[in-house]
Amino acid sequence: MYRTIILLILSTNLLFSQNEDSLKINEIYNEALTDYTAYNQLKYLCKNIGGRISGTPQAAAAVNYTFHIMKSMELDTVYLQEVVVPHWERGEEFASVISEKTGYKELKVSALGMSVGTGEKGLSAKVIEISSFEDLRKKGKKNIEGKIVFFNTPMPQEYINTFRSYGSTAKFRTTGASEAAKYGAVGVIVRSLTGSVDDHPHTGVMYYQNDVMKIPAVMVSTIGANLLSERLKLDPDCQLYIKSTCKIHPNTISYNVIGQITGTEFPDEIITIGGHLDSWDTGEGAHDDGVGCIQSIEVLRIFKKLGIKPKRTIRAVMFMDEEIAQTGGKAYAKQAKIKIEKHYFALESDRGGTTPYGISIDTRSFNSEKIRKWYSLLKPYGIYVIQNRGGGVDISFLKKEFNTPLGSILVDPQRYFTWHHSTNDLFKYIDRREMQLGSALMASLIVLIDTYGIE
Amino acid sequence: MYRTIILLILSTNLLFSQNEDSLKINEIYNEALTDYTAYNQLKYLCKNIGGRISGTPQAAAAVNYTFHIMKSMELDTVYLQEVVVPHWERGEEFASVISEKTGYKELKVSALGMSVGTGEKGLSAKVIEISSFEDLRKKGKKNIEGKIVFFNTPMPQEYINTFRSYGSTAKFRTTGASEAAKYGAVGVIVRSLTGSVDDHPHTGVMYYQNDVMKIPAVMVSTIGANLLSERLKLDPDCQLYIKSTCKIHPNTISYNVIGQITGTEFPDEIITIGGHLDSWDTGEGAHDDGVGCIQSIEVLRIFKKLGIKPKRTIRAVMFMDEEIAQTGGKAYAKQAKIKIEKHYFALESDRGGTTPYGISIDTRSFNSEKIRKWYSLLKPYGIYVIQNRGGGVDISFLKKEFNTPLGSILVDPQRYFTWHHSTNDLFKYIDRREMQLGSALMASLIVLIDTYGIE
Repeated sequence: MYRTIILLILSTNLLFSQNEDSLKINEIYNEALTDYTAYNQLKYLCKNIGGRISGTPQAAAAVNYTFHIMKSMELDTVYLQEVVVPHWERGEEFASVISEKTGYKELKVSALGMSVGTGEKGLSAKVIEISSFEDLRKKGKKNIEGKIVFFNTPMPQEYINTFRSYGSTAKFRTTGASEAAKYGAVGVIVRSLTGSVDDHPHTGVMYYQNDVMKIPAVMVSTIGANLLSERLKLDPDCQLYIKSTCKIHPNTISYNVIGQITGTEFPDEIITIGGHLDSWDTGEGAHDDGVGCIQSIEVLRIFKKLGIKPKRTIRAVMFMDEEIAQTGGKAYAKQAKIKIEKHYFALESDRGGTTPYGISIDTRSFNSEKIRKWYSLLKPYGIYVIQNRGGGVDISFLKKEFNTPLGSILVDPQRYFTWHHSTNDLFKYIDRREMQLGSALMASLIVLIDTYGIE
Repeated sequence: MYRTIILLILSTNLLFSQNEDSLKINEIYNEALTDYTAYNQLKYLCKNIGGRISGTPQAAAAVNYTFHIMKSMELDTVYLQEVVVPHWERGEEFASVISEKTGYKELKVSALGMSVGTGEKGLSAKVIEISSFEDLRKKGKKNIEGKIVFFNTPMPQEYINTFRSYGSTAKFRTTGASEAAKYGAVGVIVRSLTGSVDDHPHTGVMYYQNDVMKIPAVMVSTIGANLLSERLKLDPDCQLYIKSTCKIHPNTISYNVIGQITGTEFPDEIITIGGHLDSWDTGEGAHDDGVGCIQSIEVLRIFKKLGIKPKRTIRAVMFMDEEIAQTGGKAYAKQAKIKIEKHYFALESDRGGTTPYGISIDTRSFNSEKIRKWYSLLKPYGIYVIQNRGGGVDISFLKKEFNTPLGSILVDPQRYFTWHHSTNDLFKYIDRREMQLGSALMASLIVLIDTYGIE
């Protein structure tokens, strides 16, 4: 059940009560907003290491970098946790549309993660534009066989919550190749999942069904998709050429990176804060999800700087391989079970580094006076929504294993899909203040949960 | 008295009641979020016309462009309103710091609006760094005379509302030159008003006191300010060279651009929506305030598209010369007085094109059931705050003249001062969805005020 609470606050001013909690939260926000450490760490991760699919040297460099940041912070424990990860390599990619009537035009494409490639020679075929899986069924084998299926459903723009839009159209990316292959398609080209009209192709993971031919799958920029659609109207027999030399290597070893401040009273009760360290490779992995990793480290930095000594153990976890198979999140929960750890609460930041407006907490005791008090403490910082929902992908395995309450911060979702999984997910689109409001909110929420508990 | 209301909403879902108002507002948001007209108009204004100080050919081109947009919209009236505006011209600008000990380094500077220049030869002098007007008084004539005063107070970063930070440090830009000249300074160089550490110098208007020597004033990028401060520590005798060939021309004629939909029941009651058409010239005037102008036109486009026929007259006004002398706002109010117009309400968008989170309305009947109902209608669109405060600079003259209630939309202020008045105020930092959430909020609020009235 999803619930949203907005509490009644009627005051002549936004002065908050001068109690210990509000002073502590004020200190946390002041520290986050006036400091540049986390911003510069994220800059290094994005600019010097860059995009980092699990199994690649870049992912290994990101493990090394964040491990050494935390090693330098005088935390109580810093360690690597082994994870067996998939290793998919992008290779070259290229597409063009060719027609005797309308000429030749290149399209900006990115192969989908875990797709097979076309081989060096590439793939050349006619194209059929499809608007839905229903449309695919209707057109059937006689129209589709031997062609490249072009899924051209724009991400709807009318929803306020862009994650809802994403949820409604991501299926063409994740399952479109196998669905199309059932009707004899030889490849798929999918419109990028963004409302922006630009030439930045997006990517993201796709899955093949076991009993269906594996055909190559690429994603095309929205400008490219519009152009291809126009060319198809002018010449339905135009040819699409796709070359994609991506390949799947054997699984390899990588790591979750973990640093912790051990609790003073209940060291066995673990509060996890995290983001995922892997990212797609065409951009720099800034908003998805370099920022969530560095914010998690930043919470520990703020705790150390302000001398906050939590009762419970606070762990920052950089999860490996969220994007492909979530092996990092699974390995973390599995090790927790083996070690009989007690996972008290987990919080993930994986919605980009924009301005927070709320928090989402998945707990049975949601509607309590306690949450109302937290709301009034956080409202001066622009936190207007407290939702009774879940957390992120990586921490979901803790929920499954231990029924751990999960949380996430809710941030402005308007711009996220202009960057997400694209060549446009760059450090230059990170705003330091926005990112640090996220860090401060995470640190404040952890202080409240550690102080007052959560059921 | 400033008040803020957050109302109690406790529901199992964000479904809003399916009454006529909520359906109308839903239609408005759908239209705004799925349409690209306004975004492309703003692109033209920014990329083809660019920065546009009042009195310049660019400002004239912006008048012409927005006049012709509105002429093409089948509005009831579109006209230009004459305004006598100042005309300040930037010219060349250059600065460098020179020292036998530390060498030579250029600094990125912009002259302050209405400043006198240095002449072609430029100005070379020693520098004294000053942190406050108190510091200026303490250092006194013996330390300051013959030198360039360097106001290097960073815009504070700890406030959540960045406009508050701006308010606390803008005085060095607006009045620093005359304050320094009283102690014999020969020029001033002021740290840019931003929390970003970048090489984009900001600008903005400054004022000379009547009885004080007019000395040249420039603003330096934050990277430049940090560098100058470091060089001064290494060599307090280093020389600063400033060249600025800006000059003040005689006043000239320009225009407010006005388009209106005439009311069906109360055509004499005017609701003004506006932004300012002039901008600083070093950027493209995107967030400050091309976006406010185009959003105002967009409200009329949405009304026409959806067949909304307001009871009162709705006017979109592109105000000229907000940045220097506010002659556009003053002329609009003066003409209203001459024509004995009845100004019912006025709304300005001049805080950038980022995601709205609230509205500000300056009315005596603020705490009414009506406002509570509006709040519940707007909350599904992320509007969490309704403040009892004022509107913008240009419409403030209506308040003075007619006691017209004023409003503004409250938008995420975190990034605004990375762009505001700088070489960085570029169209590429406009997000279509964020901008259009502003347009939709403005249109929705005007519908509510027109339907239910405001006291």
